[in-house]
Parts: sequence; structure tokens; C-alpha cells
Amino acid sequence: MNDRLRKQLEFSLEIDKEKNIFRQTHLSGHGRNENDAEHAWHMAIMAYLLREYANEEVDIAKVMLMCLIHDIVEIDAGDTYAYDAEALKTQKAREDAAKERIFSLLPDDQKTELTALFDEFEDAQTAEAKFAHALDNLQPLILNHSNDGSDWSEHGVTAEQVYSRQSRTREGSEVLFGETDRIIREHIQKGHLQWELREGHLQ
Amino acid sequence: MNDRLRKQLEFSLEIDKEKNIFRQTHLSGHGRNENDAEHAWHMAIMAYLLREYANEEVDIAKVMLMCLIHDIVEIDAGDTYAYDAEALKTQKAREDAAKERIFSLLPDDQKTELTALFDEFEDAQTAEAKFAHALDNLQPLILNHSNDGSDWSEHGVTAEQVYSRQSRTREGSEVLFGETDRIIREHIQKGHLQWELREGHLQ
Repeated sequence: MNDRLRKQLEFSLEIDKEKNIFRQTHLSGHGRNENDAEHAWHMAIMAYLLREYANEEVDIAKVMLMCLIHDIVEIDAGDTYAYDAEALKTQKAREDAAKERIFSLLPDDQKTELTALFDEFEDAQTAEAKFAHALDNLQPLILNHSNDGSDWSEHGVTAEQVYSRQSRTREGSEVLFGETDRIIREHIQKGHLQWELREGHLQ
Repeated sequence: MNDRLRKQLEFSLEIDKEKNIFRQTHLSGHGRNENDAEHAWHMAIMAYLLREYANEEVDIAKVMLMCLIHDIVEIDAGDTYAYDAEALKTQKAREDAAKERIFSLLPDDQKTELTALFDEFEDAQTAEAKFAHALDNLQPLILNHSNDGSDWSEHGVTAEQVYSRQSRTREGSEVLFGETDRIIREHIQKGHLQWELREGHLQ
């Protein structure tokens, strides 16, 4: 076997481990925790189906590939829960080391390409990265919505925290943020999510 | 919410169920059974990385999307093991009914588009479909290879059966079939796979 194909297959086998990285989100029907590979698969299909709602025109193949690979570093670095302030502090250092190790399994040109795509997602400046982030938020939101917001109540997440995270959706898609806002308001109304400030006032 | 977005999100939530459809393949490291969503995610990334080996030039975005959706019908129809002759007889009827129900959740234009893409994969006539099939074979092969061929031995699969299935890989990629052939020979040599005919002669 040529060395190039050997490297490509070694990388392909390595990323199988992403299926063992579990997230805080639960599958619909109050199912088990979702893993990173499933999340990425779901996001990529949703990106394709919902591309008409991107704020700017996007290269959808690039968005899909970005969705598919954006969590690969978590094979080493683990999943960092969006509302875990302590873990968020060390997230970048852990993910940088993982990025170097895992993408180095590939031939140099593909290492460069995938690293750049990963960084583009992280930097969230391009139309494609912004739209991919909108999907990174919306995909777990629709699962959590279908499960009566139990992923929030389990962790005592506040309405402020949810809005702070979900506000990034707006940069990628005003339409999808509109729907996100509608869903969040519904859960606030039902008592699944509470305002920290308002709670404080009541005490 | 507009009716179009409502339908798109309803479909998006429905396909979450694909994460509960488990296959006969096991994850690397002698892990648990793999599910359809993980398999599709893995295939789509491999398709992108290995696209240089396609026999004909392919529209890689189309191949990736084909990979991502090709098992959605199994939400209703279940996974049909490639070497289960009885289940294979009813597979088409079960999958046709599922295809109609699930893609009908989408707006009409997207139903038409995704149904056509699904059918194109099934018909395996275009360059994209042939290459996607090569990946549909290669992805579980590299997992099984890493697990000493235990998915074959568990089901008493013969070398003839493996070659019969994997021969389709050749239509999409001679290079990937070359590697497939090398892997199969290695497992025959190690006794993980046996020729049915040769076994018969020995009895």
C-alpha cells in the first residue's frame, strides 16, 4: 500500500473514537446521551436542508465538511459542556494539542487543509463558519426542545446562559435565531428555564 | 413559524431516530455495535479524504450528502445485514415504504431532491453512487479489520460472501478495491475468513 493511502486510512480509523465522546445533549424520546459523531452527522444534514436561511450565501459543501470535522479534537480533549465555566478555561490548550496530534496522521496537504477548516470554524468569521455555528447550536436545541428542556434543568442552566450561547446563531442565520428565540421563550414560559436575575429578585 | 421551516425541523427531528438503528459492525477497540448515523458520518468524511481514488471524477458534495442520508429509511425498515439472505428478500419493500413516509415530512421540493439522491445511491449507476458504495463497504471493513475480523467470524461469513459484497467497491474505486483485497487476503491467511468451497472439500 502506498504511504499516502496508509496515512489516510490510519486517520480514518483514529476518528472512529469520536463515537465514544458523549455530550450533555440527550437523544429525542428522552434517550441516551448523544455522541460527537452523531451530532456532527445531524448538523451536516440540517446545514444542507436549512441553507436557504443562511444570512450570507455559503459554500454548502464547505459548511457540511466543517460540521463533520468540527469536534474531532474532542477525541483527546473531551467534550466541554457549553455551560461549564471551569472546563472552558482550559479548552483551547487541550484542543490545540489534540488538533496537532490527530490531523498529523494525515498526509501533509490534507493535514493543512483540515486544520485550516477546523480553525475557520473556531474563528467564526466567515459566512460558512457562522452558519456552521448556527447549526452547532440549533441541532442540540431541537433535541432538548423535544425533551421538554431537560438538558437545561438537569444542569440548572439559566435563560441568560442559553441566550448568551444561542445569540451566536443570529450571526449565521436571523431566521434560525428567530425560531431559537421562540423555542427559548416557550421553555421560559413553561418554567423549564429561569432568569437568574428575576430569580434573585424574588428571593 | 412558517410552514416550510416547520416541516424542515420536523424532518430534522425525525432523523434523530437513525442513531438508534444498530448495525452488525463493531467500533474499533472491540467496541459496541455501530449505529447508522455514526456509520454515515464516518463514510462521508472518508469519501472526502479518499476522493482522489474514485475511478471517475465525482461531485464530492453530492457523494457526501448521499453518504449522510443513504440509511435514513432504516429508521422504519431496520438494518438489513449484508449476509442475511432472508431479510434481503423483503428489504426493498420495507425500505420503499419508509422512504415515502420519512421524506414526505419535508417540503415537496426537498422531498423530491432527497428521494432522487437516495434512489441514485440505490441504483448505483452514477460515478457518485458507485463511489459512495465503495465507502459504504470500506468503512465497516476498516473497523472489522482493526477488530481481527470478528464481525465475520461471529456470523460465520465466508470469503466468497465477503468478495461478493466487496466486489462493488471496484466499480467505484480500483485503488480502494486493491486495498480491500489485500485486507481480505490477510484475514483468510490468518483463518478469520474461510472459503466455503475449500471447507466443503475438506469435509
